[in-house]
Amino acid sequence: MALAGFSSAPIGGNAPRYWEDVEVGERVRSAEFAFSPENIVAFASRYDPQPMHLSEATAAKSFFGELIASGWQTACETFRLMVDARPLGSTPLVGLEIKELKFERPVRPGDRIYAEGEVLERRASKSRPERGIVIMRVVTKNQSDQPVMSQVWVAILPTRKAPPLS
Amino acid sequence: MALAGFSSAPIGGNAPRYWEDVEVGERVRSAEFAFSPENIVAFASRYDPQPMHLSEATAAKSFFGELIASGWQTACETFRLMVDARPLGSTPLVGLEIKELKFERPVRPGDRIYAEGEVLERRASKSRPERGIVIMRVVTKNQSDQPVMSQVWVAILPTRKAPPLS
Repeated sequence: MALAGFSSAPIGGNAPRYWEDVEVGERVRSAEFAFSPENIVAFASRYDPQPMHLSEATAAKSFFGELIASGWQTACETFRLMVDARPLGSTPLVGLEIKELKFERPVRPGDRIYAEGEVLERRASKSRPERGIVIMRVVTKNQSDQPVMSQVWVAILPTRKAPPLS
Repeated sequence: MALAGFSSAPIGGNAPRYWEDVEVGERVRSAEFAFSPENIVAFASRYDPQPMHLSEATAAKSFFGELIASGWQTACETFRLMVDARPLGSTPLVGLEIKELKFERPVRPGDRIYAEGEVLERRASKSRPERGIVIMRVVTKNQSDQPVMSQVWVAILPTRKAPPLS
């Protein structure tokens, strides 16, 4: 599943990365997460208790006609995969905003997802020289490499003018 | 905590609502959810294992200097509150897209949140007469009525030309 230009290892390692270190066009690819009927129903029971996510029986009569994962589960699993990929090394992923989040395709039991991140833009903070902004596209794909979710994240991170953070 | 113009009861009840029934300007207010150190750490351990969310000790040395909830936890709890508020009655909340999601303020242990939804726009589907689009602003506020998260949801729902759905 390795693609040219993607790293499946944590690209940032354990060292902190700063705003100045991040390059436009930089890419990261995460590990995978597998959806099951059990984890779909468990997540939905807590956060999205609607018929298409709660059981095969209720889903069969629903909008989608089959059991599918909550889009919020896909978003949360994508975030976990990206945290583990450590694109910023030991510098945390801190979001200011998500500029768009599209539910591209249903995610079904048995689907395996991974996330690809790409840095679109790096922007200085006008008001805070110790912080900078990085804009990343994050696309979650299934085992057939079809996008199931796409997002644009606006993240804030320390510049080299800031004290180190964990 | 009741505000003029807001309903804290499920406004849609148990009957299905259709696209034609939804009015621009219509508003809903959810029940509340309380954050605790335990539920913050539990959510983060699974979906957002970063120092500012995992313990008071790791958070003290982090970007925020104190334990705060994952923004994804706030998003998921907001969605649960909105599902329970049933703004569309028995018609499910199905998202096509989130046009923006802003992390407005940190959420801390002890904070209680609620969500307010307002219909901004109702748009016919060009390609599918049995489906329509509703655009809603959803603002999550804390116990001091300060916004902690704001979103714009693009939802799809059946028109009266569609068969009933659960």
